[in-house]
Amino acid sequence: MSSGDAASVPSLTPTPEDRFSFGLWTVGWRAADPFGDPTRPVLDPVEAVHRLAALGAWGVTFHDDDLIPFGTDEAGREKVIARFKAALEETGLVVPMATTNLFGHPVFKGGALTNNDRDIRRYALRKVMRNMDLAAELGASTYVLWGGREGSETDAGIDVRAALDRYAEGIDTLAQYSVDQGYGLKLALEPKPNEPRGDILLPTIGHALAFISRLDHHEMVGVNPEVGHEQMAGLNYVHGIGQALWSGKLFHLDLNGQRGPRYDQDLIFGHGDVLSAFFTVDLLEHGGYDGPRHFDYKPLRTEDADGVWASAEANMRSYLALRERARAFRADPEVQEALRAARVDELARPTLEPGETPAALRADRSAFEEFDVEAAAARGGAFVRLSQLALEHLTGFRAAGGTGL
Amino acid sequence: MSSGDAASVPSLTPTPEDRFSFGLWTVGWRAADPFGDPTRPVLDPVEAVHRLAALGAWGVTFHDDDLIPFGTDEAGREKVIARFKAALEETGLVVPMATTNLFGHPVFKGGALTNNDRDIRRYALRKVMRNMDLAAELGASTYVLWGGREGSETDAGIDVRAALDRYAEGIDTLAQYSVDQGYGLKLALEPKPNEPRGDILLPTIGHALAFISRLDHHEMVGVNPEVGHEQMAGLNYVHGIGQALWSGKLFHLDLNGQRGPRYDQDLIFGHGDVLSAFFTVDLLEHGGYDGPRHFDYKPLRTEDADGVWASAEANMRSYLALRERARAFRADPEVQEALRAARVDELARPTLEPGETPAALRADRSAFEEFDVEAAAARGGAFVRLSQLALEHLTGFRAAGGTGL
Amino acid sequence: MSSGDAASVPSLTPTPEDRFSFGLWTVGWRAADPFGDPTRPVLDPVEAVHRLAALGAWGVTFHDDDLIPFGTDEAGREKVIARFKAALEETGLVVPMATTNLFGHPVFKGGALTNNDRDIRRYALRKVMRNMDLAAELGASTYVLWGGREGSETDAGIDVRAALDRYAEGIDTLAQYSVDQGYGLKLALEPKPNEPRGDILLPTIGHALAFISRLDHHEMVGVNPEVGHEQMAGLNYVHGIGQALWSGKLFHLDLNGQRGPRYDQDLIFGHGDVLSAFFTVDLLEHGGYDGPRHFDYKPLRTEDADGVWASAEANMRSYLALRERARAFRADPEVQEALRAARVDELARPTLEPGETPAALRADRSAFEEFDVEAAAARGGAFVRLSQLALEHLTGFRAAGGTGL
Amino acid sequence: MSSGDAASVPSLTPTPEDRFSFGLWTVGWRAADPFGDPTRPVLDPVEAVHRLAALGAWGVTFHDDDLIPFGTDEAGREKVIARFKAALEETGLVVPMATTNLFGHPVFKGGALTNNDRDIRRYALRKVMRNMDLAAELGASTYVLWGGREGSETDAGIDVRAALDRYAEGIDTLAQYSVDQGYGLKLALEPKPNEPRGDILLPTIGHALAFISRLDHHEMVGVNPEVGHEQMAGLNYVHGIGQALWSGKLFHLDLNGQRGPRYDQDLIFGHGDVLSAFFTVDLLEHGGYDGPRHFDYKPLRTEDADGVWASAEANMRSYLALRERARAFRADPEVQEALRAARVDELARPTLEPGETPAALRADRSAFEEFDVEAAAARGGAFVRLSQLALEHLTGFRAAGGTGL
Repeated sequence: MSSGDAASVPSLTPTPEDRFSFGLWTVGWRAADPFGDPTRPVLDPVEAVHRLAALGAWGVTFHDDDLIPFGTDEAGREKVIARFKAALEETGLVVPMATTNLFGHPVFKGGALTNNDRDIRRYALRKVMRNMDLAAELGASTYVLWGGREGSETDAGIDVRAALDRYAEGIDTLAQYSVDQGYGLKLALEPKPNEPRGDILLPTIGHALAFISRLDHHEMVGVNPEVGHEQMAGLNYVHGIGQALWSGKLFHLDLNGQRGPRYDQDLIFGHGDVLSAFFTVDLLEHGGYDGPRHFDYKPLRTEDADGVWASAEANMRSYLALRERARAFRADPEVQEALRAARVDELARPTLEPGETPAALRADRSAFEEFDVEAAAARGGAFVRLSQLALEHLTGFRAAGGTGL
Repeated sequence: MSSGDAASVPSLTPTPEDRFSFGLWTVGWRAADPFGDPTRPVLDPVEAVHRLAALGAWGVTFHDDDLIPFGTDEAGREKVIARFKAALEETGLVVPMATTNLFGHPVFKGGALTNNDRDIRRYALRKVMRNMDLAAELGASTYVLWGGREGSETDAGIDVRAALDRYAEGIDTLAQYSVDQGYGLKLALEPKPNEPRGDILLPTIGHALAFISRLDHHEMVGVNPEVGHEQMAGLNYVHGIGQALWSGKLFHLDLNGQRGPRYDQDLIFGHGDVLSAFFTVDLLEHGGYDGPRHFDYKPLRTEDADGVWASAEANMRSYLALRERARAFRADPEVQEALRAARVDELARPTLEPGETPAALRADRSAFEEFDVEAAAARGGAFVRLSQLALEHLTGFRAAGGTGL
Repeated sequence: MSSGDAASVPSLTPTPEDRFSFGLWTVGWRAADPFGDPTRPVLDPVEAVHRLAALGAWGVTFHDDDLIPFGTDEAGREKVIARFKAALEETGLVVPMATTNLFGHPVFKGGALTNNDRDIRRYALRKVMRNMDLAAELGASTYVLWGGREGSETDAGIDVRAALDRYAEGIDTLAQYSVDQGYGLKLALEPKPNEPRGDILLPTIGHALAFISRLDHHEMVGVNPEVGHEQMAGLNYVHGIGQALWSGKLFHLDLNGQRGPRYDQDLIFGHGDVLSAFFTVDLLEHGGYDGPRHFDYKPLRTEDADGVWASAEANMRSYLALRERARAFRADPEVQEALRAARVDELARPTLEPGETPAALRADRSAFEEFDVEAAAARGGAFVRLSQLALEHLTGFRAAGGTGL
Repeated sequence: MSSGDAASVPSLTPTPEDRFSFGLWTVGWRAADPFGDPTRPVLDPVEAVHRLAALGAWGVTFHDDDLIPFGTDEAGREKVIARFKAALEETGLVVPMATTNLFGHPVFKGGALTNNDRDIRRYALRKVMRNMDLAAELGASTYVLWGGREGSETDAGIDVRAALDRYAEGIDTLAQYSVDQGYGLKLALEPKPNEPRGDILLPTIGHALAFISRLDHHEMVGVNPEVGHEQMAGLNYVHGIGQALWSGKLFHLDLNGQRGPRYDQDLIFGHGDVLSAFFTVDLLEHGGYDGPRHFDYKPLRTEDADGVWASAEANMRSYLALRERARAFRADPEVQEALRAARVDELARPTLEPGETPAALRADRSAFEEFDVEAAAARGGAFVRLSQLALEHLTGFRAAGGTGL
């Protein structure tokens, strides 16, 4: 039973229509951390597929090494892939995205695409290509690249400009590879400020977008922003994906939770900054994003297998709960009135008149010389009311689209 | 209309029984910030009293200079106090707490009780005493001290140990003054890590508690922790006030909102980390705290007078909303079962048997030599379920104490 | 006396050749902060010019309102400008940059170029244009825009995409104005993550670069990154300006100090993260930047006029000290050898052979199938030695380019 | 060659007189991190002892499991201990401190002394006792306890007050054990705010000191503060150990480097916030601390064995370099004069006259009614000069105690 009468109770049970996807590495995380050994056994990817499907998920994603352990021979690889495909077919789960592990093996300790060692850079490109082949074969449309090892701990050890040259060379090579092979894969770069490196290149959504704008293949490269990664830099995730959408570059995203600048927590979505999660869902649902709702989280190390599956479910339930609250928020006439009172809609109107030149604006005395600055300054922004309406929607006190209390 | 049927709709309208109090400096903040001039006119404290009372508040608090502008002569002072008292009588508002402005005037730029200049230290003590007189006259039981200027920007400029000596001397002097005058005022120290000083002494609840333990008058000095101040250091406010309660030292508190390590935002309670606010209310309501629910926030600089009063109301509504959610959370049988599953109750049981000595424990082979470590390690913590139940209560999806969805 | 024998003692006395510049608002800061009143009197800009010149500075910069108080009439304005020009002539100080105060007056409380109120947006554009006229007249080549009020405290109160549309419209209008007027001014955007707004648009160098890439006049717009602003987000300033240089967009910069994520401290350059300051100077001196070394700091609120001028001098001495250390670092044969050992130079070499296609790389068995991953993984990065050499240079223990101790 | 003429060149070569100690887990760290596998082989503790001794270290410390792998049988254990003792004898290295690994094994995933599971709490106590036996046998005088797993990720899963009760019970039991066994071991608690738990109990020096003050055996329990742990909360390490010294509780400490709030970096001492490291050494050398200079750091994951030993050496060289700079700073007459100008010495003088009562202060008109506030406010703090002198000493520009440049 929930708030509201039974007829209007929204379900928190996910279905494939909700387009929820999970990385194999999430539910399969063995829960080793910098100070402790694994607390859970290896999870068979085939089991993961079945369990996720049973919970109502729609898609599954993977790093090459999640599916096929590093060093597996060709025969073993084929066998793994065949079993995985069979599981996908049985369950109907899709593979919307894949990515490469360019961070786990010691060879990448000093970077992959930007390693000072050129042979390692070439090896890294080949490792990506190999998994792009598989991604395309499995029907993925997005290929994610997280350069977790591209960075440094001492500024003396990296020539940032040379590193960005190599990074761009690498990404353009991979984009060209997708084109040459007819894979139709778009690439999505995932920013992160630090951890495991002291400083990672392309630390935020902004840096990644700026980098992409200078690529030869900029048109087929976008971003895959993760909630926690932006919040590790104290940045507003909603604003970040807002700028990515504005740039036409929100190709994919990673939903999870984080509690501010500290280690990368990868909490369940909603278990970090809930208010930001609410506005994230609001933007995704009402802002034109139509890609997967992908969870990149880690089940707490304290949990056993039951806790793992409870956590997978919790991500989806949190999203659905927030979706319901965001829908009611947007539908609430009082919210709509408060938005108008805060003149949020007025921002869509250009500042200049159609065809107005700078010189014309310069000559418009009503804009400056005769503008009543003090009167304009005295008008209240009316943001508090909006903010409180959001909180009361989030907490379910206006759930029936009502009139307040 | 809210979630749930009408009969069970909890009201978000505050009453004096809720014991909400506000600082004069909150609604009266003129909204100057480091980069901008005031956006609002001076607010008459008498108006503040009437408005707060009309909104359902119970108490009002103040710095000396909030009520009586710095430099007012004795006659002016008496007039201000008389008007203020009359307003309190008319409205029934109480003054549970008062405090001193030891930070605004340039004389305190290098500290007050720990200023390197002894004359300023003496002046500061006198300024506090003077307002303690008034606090006692107005019936306050708690006197707060926030040492916002006690600190430094260069470690070369402060001898921390000497500063703590002077700080302790000052607090003990003021405690003795309360005793000598028969004021019955308890003192409450308010920690903050930084801003306006580069580093402030007693930066967290912990540092303040440790400092207090070494005072001559430690028994009459406690803490006044502010949500945002702890969160500026990335610390868990609920854990902080938990330790203060454990130490018998939670004399008062300041509720507001903050978005992690950054400038001191003083947002409306609930408009920062909502999940932490939920657990804060849960602890206050169910953990034996019976002091005021005091808001120390700043109405957004964008707002006019309407926004100011909307923001005052919003603090109280947020608290009431979270109180309702916390009550339902604790009452939910599924939550109670989940708490048992996570063995939270087991922590109350001592680790040693009654009378068991270290040597006896050392000899207990069942505790070590025969303990099945791997079996114990395999048991799941069951924290995910608890965490998700909290989120679903917070968002109102289990509002009727229900069975889930 | 310094390290090294007298003959080789580098001077820490600045000269105009060092191209140091200061904002009028730095030495002129009256030292009001969120919790305290001004501690210093108004500083006459003409006195500032003379004092800065006497200390060895080369340039002075200003916001319109720094020079000409808001609301000054036209006659008063002309008088102020004339006096200022005379002081420039007398001292030889240049004006390399100017900027607009779009944050101090209450009219901008909800934003300037992205205010929800269109009239305020138009007013803001006009205010910028007016000071661009003066900037051009005084010979400035760069016009900085810091959008400190462009942002929000609640995600409900801002449509980020509309805001970026208006921001772009505004910047393009101003760029066009410079072109139309033949001013030759380049624009430089200054990013900041928060304070005074809860979240500011274009929060980092990356976001600003990404935004610029989508402007009509992208070629004449760059960035003006401030040390502290990036560090407030926990980001590496050296990497940030490295990416700006890589993008050809480091038009100007603001040097100061900060101690991590917290309020904007605006410390003296070098009085925050010294190691990062060392590498900043190293990059500026050896990385092709030839713009001003501009200080945007605030003299501590504790200081009187003597402290203000001591702080101005301290910024320049710190820079010169670090420049000397960085030069010796780069000249040290042991450092050069360590750089080779860490293969830093190898990063300049493209990863692909000239003309090599993705398919050719794909076919190169030496790059993957025959690559000895474990051998490559075993090679040490050799970064510790570099890092320690930097520290020993910074602390002057290898000052004479020597052989170690 | 270094700063100054050859005769005065301080050596950066450590000797046992410098009392440098290292944890076995530092140089022995295999460099697995949350995203990557180990990059280095197991290091034999005996080799570590020999190498550290050869580099000039004085002591070595260990967790039980560092020396004797978890699960080793009794016979194996004895063999390991015998070999280790032999190495100590051969090299002269001492064991000033030991500690317990209560975080690595999955059994501790939900806590050790505060685990909700009482059997695990008892097991944890026994694991500590067992290594206290060895610590005493090896001559250690301090036993460190880091409760890295004592904490939570959801506030619902922990009763903080019950947890502190159990924590206190555990520590008091161990203290009593030391007393009962006549071990003479003092206990030192190591605070940390988070990682590996979302929130760790006793998150800062302050919280640990406050907790200790309520222990039965408070007199034999102190703190072991780590540079990076405090800086992860944005706190000033120098102030923190200053308060610990003031409380008589700085029993031991962990030197390393960190770059603000983010994951626990465990950088080489001096490779983080250098200015803070300078003042840390200054306080340790001139503030009466006479314990070990213990390094708790991790050699960068990028490094091979050469890098490991280079990093061990680097910690000691950094300390020696900063010690030399701090000595010269304190000896510099200009610094002494600047300290007097900033009236730092005046803080040692009590604020009240000997025997002065609060009432007497209240009656002293010179302290308030006749105090010239504005004149006092106008005096500058003179902190900038001190701060810049520190920087110029740190960077070696005043190395010979000189007259400036």
